[in-house]
Amino acid sequence: MDEILKAVLERVRPTEAERRRLQRIAAKLIRRVDDACAKLGVSARAMLVGSAARGTWLRTERDIDIFILFPKELPREELEKKGLAVAREVAGRKRKEQFAEHPYVTTKLDGFEVDLVPCYDIPEPSRIKSAVDRTPHHNRYISKRLTPKLRDEVLLLKQFLSGIGVYGAELKIQGFSGYLCELLTLNYRSFKNVVAAASAWSPGTVIDLERSYPDINEARALFAGQPLIVIDPVDANRNAGAAVSMQNFATFVRACQDFLREPSMRFFFPKPVRLLSSREVRAIMKRRGTALFCIAFKSPDVVPDVLYPQLRKTERTLSTNLARAGFEVLRSDVWSNDNSILLLELTVARLPNVRIHAGPPITVGVGGFVEKHLHSKRKFTGPFVDDAGKLVFEIEREQTDARQVIEQALTKRAAFGRHVAEALAVKYEIYEGGQIAEFCRDKKIRKFISEYLTRCLPWYR
Amino acid sequence: MDEILKAVLERVRPTEAERRRLQRIAAKLIRRVDDACAKLGVSARAMLVGSAARGTWLRTERDIDIFILFPKELPREELEKKGLAVAREVAGRKRKEQFAEHPYVTTKLDGFEVDLVPCYDIPEPSRIKSAVDRTPHHNRYISKRLTPKLRDEVLLLKQFLSGIGVYGAELKIQGFSGYLCELLTLNYRSFKNVVAAASAWSPGTVIDLERSYPDINEARALFAGQPLIVIDPVDANRNAGAAVSMQNFATFVRACQDFLREPSMRFFFPKPVRLLSSREVRAIMKRRGTALFCIAFKSPDVVPDVLYPQLRKTERTLSTNLARAGFEVLRSDVWSNDNSILLLELTVARLPNVRIHAGPPITVGVGGFVEKHLHSKRKFTGPFVDDAGKLVFEIEREQTDARQVIEQALTKRAAFGRHVAEALAVKYEIYEGGQIAEFCRDKKIRKFISEYLTRCLPWYR
Repeated sequence: MDEILKAVLERVRPTEAERRRLQRIAAKLIRRVDDACAKLGVSARAMLVGSAARGTWLRTERDIDIFILFPKELPREELEKKGLAVAREVAGRKRKEQFAEHPYVTTKLDGFEVDLVPCYDIPEPSRIKSAVDRTPHHNRYISKRLTPKLRDEVLLLKQFLSGIGVYGAELKIQGFSGYLCELLTLNYRSFKNVVAAASAWSPGTVIDLERSYPDINEARALFAGQPLIVIDPVDANRNAGAAVSMQNFATFVRACQDFLREPSMRFFFPKPVRLLSSREVRAIMKRRGTALFCIAFKSPDVVPDVLYPQLRKTERTLSTNLARAGFEVLRSDVWSNDNSILLLELTVARLPNVRIHAGPPITVGVGGFVEKHLHSKRKFTGPFVDDAGKLVFEIEREQTDARQVIEQALTKRAAFGRHVAEALAVKYEIYEGGQIAEFCRDKKIRKFISEYLTRCLPWYR
Repeated sequence: MDEILKAVLERVRPTEAERRRLQRIAAKLIRRVDDACAKLGVSARAMLVGSAARGTWLRTERDIDIFILFPKELPREELEKKGLAVAREVAGRKRKEQFAEHPYVTTKLDGFEVDLVPCYDIPEPSRIKSAVDRTPHHNRYISKRLTPKLRDEVLLLKQFLSGIGVYGAELKIQGFSGYLCELLTLNYRSFKNVVAAASAWSPGTVIDLERSYPDINEARALFAGQPLIVIDPVDANRNAGAAVSMQNFATFVRACQDFLREPSMRFFFPKPVRLLSSREVRAIMKRRGTALFCIAFKSPDVVPDVLYPQLRKTERTLSTNLARAGFEVLRSDVWSNDNSILLLELTVARLPNVRIHAGPPITVGVGGFVEKHLHSKRKFTGPFVDDAGKLVFEIEREQTDARQVIEQALTKRAAFGRHVAEALAVKYEIYEGGQIAEFCRDKKIRKFISEYLTRCLPWYR
């Protein structure tokens, strides 16, 4: 195992030259922020945060996060205005303005993605005004404790998580943030220890570095339903592992179990998904024998953290509607770049006209139930009593065709998420069965469909 | 309501002439038994039991039950031998020998069905050697208490139960026995009172005429799971309502509720089921859009009380097998005369090749599960982790065709019941969809299918 880890480290750890280069660029950015503040008469200071600041960036990561710290007395409106002005001055023309809790600016410099984020400089983390104000505290907490040896352990963990597909706290991924990797490493002191511990985790695991909760059950109750609970050392009311979904939690645990049993580079650097040809897509779909529906529409102009939750909500709503209409959803997925795709796979696309409609148990007064259906045109048979003593009718199924159910939901657009609903209101296409293989001429879409049709944990590929 | 009840009574109560005729025939039979005993040198005596003895027979009922009581010291073998000899002598040539707990003989005399049943004459009902020995005690208990007025009330209850389709404790019906009707009438003192009380019954209702259980919950616990518990006055360990299924219990309760709301002759004399033409059968089946399977085979030569439980067991086994294979059974039924029929109606008859195969939650060690499927030819995708954190594979479905599942079960014949299994081993036919309309040329079968396709509580017809 040690040889594997050594080899991984050699591949993912930035070289001294790379580190120096990043430091140079970061210093330049800080200087520019200071200059801009002076020029605009703004009282603020720049701070390099994130993995670049702590030396825990993977060679493939090219992000520099610069926070612009304002005095806490400044009204929020002023902060937003002045913060944006400074950031714009620094970023120049090639900038993009983003809106999370605060507005912030992204740009590119010398091949790096640069985030310029205004925030308040609040010494006491419990008094912060918004989530971004917490970041400088995270930075101080980690920087103070992370030795060069531990930095390497963080890199191993990050690459492991990246390899198994659960690295990143953004809502598209719902995985482990860089900060979470650092906390886990600080807690367990080495990558190997993290893996050994995590292989025995079960949902509701609590890690509390600063022993903020004398009783661990208190923490568990506070963050009930979250599989991984890592108390944020700078704010005991926050779970630094809140982003980790049950699926990704379980994936990580399984990966750790498998890695311990048989360590391999595959976990860090899995084989890429093989891109299927359109012909292969068609053949696999035929062999599966299911009813596959692909709903495509132009992506609304919002960031992934806004888009993905809405796509998943829409996916859930459609699945629920289909299930309620009697259709079994085998699997579903979402995907997005310029276009967004909702994929729904059903065991069958058509159900018979008749369905059972059960009332309450017969010993309950059920007058209205009988009167409602007795002379209905939609009645097939009934009322009669089933084995369990319930009064039932057989009535006409409202929708016998899954496509009908989908189209009706897409017309109604209830519980879809605002931006997705708006985009779907403009236009959408439904591809079905063989049409999907056609639709797969677009290579990016074919990649998504390939991944869907050959779905597998990365290290088993 | 009183007018309705009066009209019913006039229709179902035997005339004085009819009563006298039955008494004459019964007396003749008793004499014949006594003569046969004398002739064969057997020490036994005859007793008229059942509704004929108590004056609670419906005009349409033509049963006379004669019990032949033997001294309790006689060994069982002797009783069976001598009992059969006497019964044969009485019945003459036109007899049939039946085998329940004891052997007994049935014959026809002057248009009546006569049962000649040997049993022990045991004064203390708690010491009886078999269920038939209890009958003379029932007879005495009821005869002693039933006034002429109450006899009419029993007739009303019997006809009501007959009209709504739940009269008869035999296993084909699983309804209310004549004895149970008498007990309910004794308890509530009138038909109207029975109906009023039953309309508020819920499963687990206990009726204990002799207050054999100081605590009613004790009785409920003893007969747990039985919807109607009527403690047998002659044997507190027996539930006289044990035969009543949940379905029939609920049907009776509902009928009582409806009758109270709107009394009508329909409850006592419902419209008969309309016999559909083959063309109508075909049209309804097409409109339903389901997959209907009809398995037909020659009925084994056993009494209905043996056959029906086996048919229902086979029906359940087939339904379970289909459900386990992923098919949804909408409804099913059984029927029998010379031929037996198992009817199974599915929402769809074909499922796709692929199915989800979920393992235990990933945090449980699931080594074997992965190894078993990872390189299986039947694997489509996987392993991957689902939303709930379970490891899943998509694998090939064993059976994609419902007919396959049925045929396989009919070849294996596990959990079918002995006689049904033996009959199916000889030969069977499966009719499917349109073939069933053909099969319905047989009018009796068409009647069964008509009832199935227009199923409805009798008083709503």
